[in-house]
Amino acid sequence: MQRNPIDRFFSIIPAGGIGSRLWPLSRASAPKFLHDLTGSGQTLLQDTWDRLTPLAGRDRILVVTGKVHKSAVLDQIEDLSTDNLVLELSPKDSTAAIALAAAILMRREPDVIIGSFAADHVIGDSEQFAQTVREAVEVAATGRIVTIGIEPTEPSVGFGYIKRGENLELEQAPNAHQVIKFVEKPNIDKARRYVESGEYLWNAGMFIAPAALLLEQVQKSEPALYASLMEIAAAWDTDERKVVMEKTWPKLKKVAIDYAVAEPAALAGLVAVVPASFTWHDVGDFAAIAELQSQGRRGNLAVLGNAKVLADSSSGILVSDTDRLIALIGLEDVIVVDTPDALLVTTKEHAQRVKSLVDALKATGHEDVL
Amino acid sequence: MQRNPIDRFFSIIPAGGIGSRLWPLSRASAPKFLHDLTGSGQTLLQDTWDRLTPLAGRDRILVVTGKVHKSAVLDQIEDLSTDNLVLELSPKDSTAAIALAAAILMRREPDVIIGSFAADHVIGDSEQFAQTVREAVEVAATGRIVTIGIEPTEPSVGFGYIKRGENLELEQAPNAHQVIKFVEKPNIDKARRYVESGEYLWNAGMFIAPAALLLEQVQKSEPALYASLMEIAAAWDTDERKVVMEKTWPKLKKVAIDYAVAEPAALAGLVAVVPASFTWHDVGDFAAIAELQSQGRRGNLAVLGNAKVLADSSSGILVSDTDRLIALIGLEDVIVVDTPDALLVTTKEHAQRVKSLVDALKATGHEDVL
Repeated sequence: MQRNPIDRFFSIIPAGGIGSRLWPLSRASAPKFLHDLTGSGQTLLQDTWDRLTPLAGRDRILVVTGKVHKSAVLDQIEDLSTDNLVLELSPKDSTAAIALAAAILMRREPDVIIGSFAADHVIGDSEQFAQTVREAVEVAATGRIVTIGIEPTEPSVGFGYIKRGENLELEQAPNAHQVIKFVEKPNIDKARRYVESGEYLWNAGMFIAPAALLLEQVQKSEPALYASLMEIAAAWDTDERKVVMEKTWPKLKKVAIDYAVAEPAALAGLVAVVPASFTWHDVGDFAAIAELQSQGRRGNLAVLGNAKVLADSSSGILVSDTDRLIALIGLEDVIVVDTPDALLVTTKEHAQRVKSLVDALKATGHEDVL
Repeated sequence: MQRNPIDRFFSIIPAGGIGSRLWPLSRASAPKFLHDLTGSGQTLLQDTWDRLTPLAGRDRILVVTGKVHKSAVLDQIEDLSTDNLVLELSPKDSTAAIALAAAILMRREPDVIIGSFAADHVIGDSEQFAQTVREAVEVAATGRIVTIGIEPTEPSVGFGYIKRGENLELEQAPNAHQVIKFVEKPNIDKARRYVESGEYLWNAGMFIAPAALLLEQVQKSEPALYASLMEIAAAWDTDERKVVMEKTWPKLKKVAIDYAVAEPAALAGLVAVVPASFTWHDVGDFAAIAELQSQGRRGNLAVLGNAKVLADSSSGILVSDTDRLIALIGLEDVIVVDTPDALLVTTKEHAQRVKSLVDALKATGHEDVL
């Protein structure tokens, strides 16, 4: 007998990605998702966890993260059992992370519907989020890969877009549409046309699908990667896990799930989209943090962290990871990020340039501060 | 037989003043004069010392500084003997510092001509400086209190001014003029009129005078202070120094030498001025440091200290007292001062506001970082 779709649901949180544009706060050793970037008192990972627990319970959430973050993740998520923690030996991009998790879950539960939700996004309304995901799970149960699309609020060039087609006319999912195609980050002219047309949504990288269907797509587009992941999944809940991981993991191909799954599946007519009824932010840079930050404001300055701050007619954001006294005088839209071994000062206008600075640090042998 | 004026000359370096506008680099514990603010590789105190040694030799320079700076001063000036080091128990302003030094020297050498030169000013050409001081010493030997005036380069409201009168027509000092009066820091309109008139020079606080004449002025305007200083001076080179200092010093009146000596002496017609033939700067704030800094520039950014710096199209000044990596992106005329326990970020335009910030720190109980 077929279970209810929501009873088959299992969340996956791929917790990876350093967030270069948030250097020096976000580091290889302490990436974005381990930080409280909203002033909520919780880290982004904890917020993500709390948002997912109402959907299928705290026992049906699996976290995929780097081996080096094991203790930080377990410290932050008390309810996470090690059974639901997949540790990567090294970063292998999103297909390996999500498809391995899907394969492990499918061996435990063949009809599982998985949903993948990044650990480092900010979502406004948890209730609305849950409702949208439930609708997406209903659509997934009809044999589709479902993504959640965000209504664009501006012609952003920072996101990929989803072109939606006809409404699928599903009784349990009245808002679900066919996806015609995914398009990569556009230039500003294209972005404007996309937004004006009303046919495009932002791709927030959320996927809900029967594990079997998702893995079928991986098998079609990346057969070698698929075979390796199946081998690891078969060994996962056995004594062989360590041996197989160490042999197989380092050779896995790095490929984004958008290429391996979403784009080919959309062209095959297998993808649907449910538009989000919640606000969403990927907190891509410090300018975004300043906007999100509602707590700890001093006048026009958003303050994140426990710094002693003396701000004299300054606006912008101050992020502090030290207990030093920080004095700002007469600065407009400034970004100051103070950490024990590195200091960044820039302006909101240049927030996106932090990434190229991190690249420059790599190139000049400053890996110690990355 | 009367000695040659220059053979009677003895320099005094009052090394006091925290330099609030240079916080957090300049501190109560490490004031301005103990720092290299020009990138010369020497501190301002060392530069001052080196500028004075050609005048009368390294044995004829006396330093007056706070007790707490004893070891720092002796570390920086290897040639300074403790005979020529006067340690204040607490700050008592410039009359106490300079008049005590003058009184001690006069007891050792009754016809001594003293010259007082701040420890924290920057002077461009040492040879020209020496020449100007030699001329001032000649004038002092005629029984005058002599100041060195700086030709104004702009209508500054940050300095007091000296109104000069007739040339004194002295053979040994062709550039010496009578001083009509000293005027305090003016507003901008007055400053403009002063500069346009050609009759005014900046008061750089340098005084050259027979010790006896200077002390006579102190006796007239501040008789109680004079009596106390004489008591200390009498005990100085005896076993009684410590006892008398501890009894007398804490009660000394705080008064600037401009009020106690320069202004009344000028009104009595006793003051002369020799215009400086050298460039002079009091390095009042970080904007000034940026201008003075010729070493260690990265493009348009002046860098003081040993920070690892990554500056991406930024101008201004970075002063570092740590070995942290500092990244600046897209900042114009910025001032960043990075010290182990305090960070300041502002702009050149607001450099003068650092002083009020320090006042605010005092008011809010942050003495630990002052």
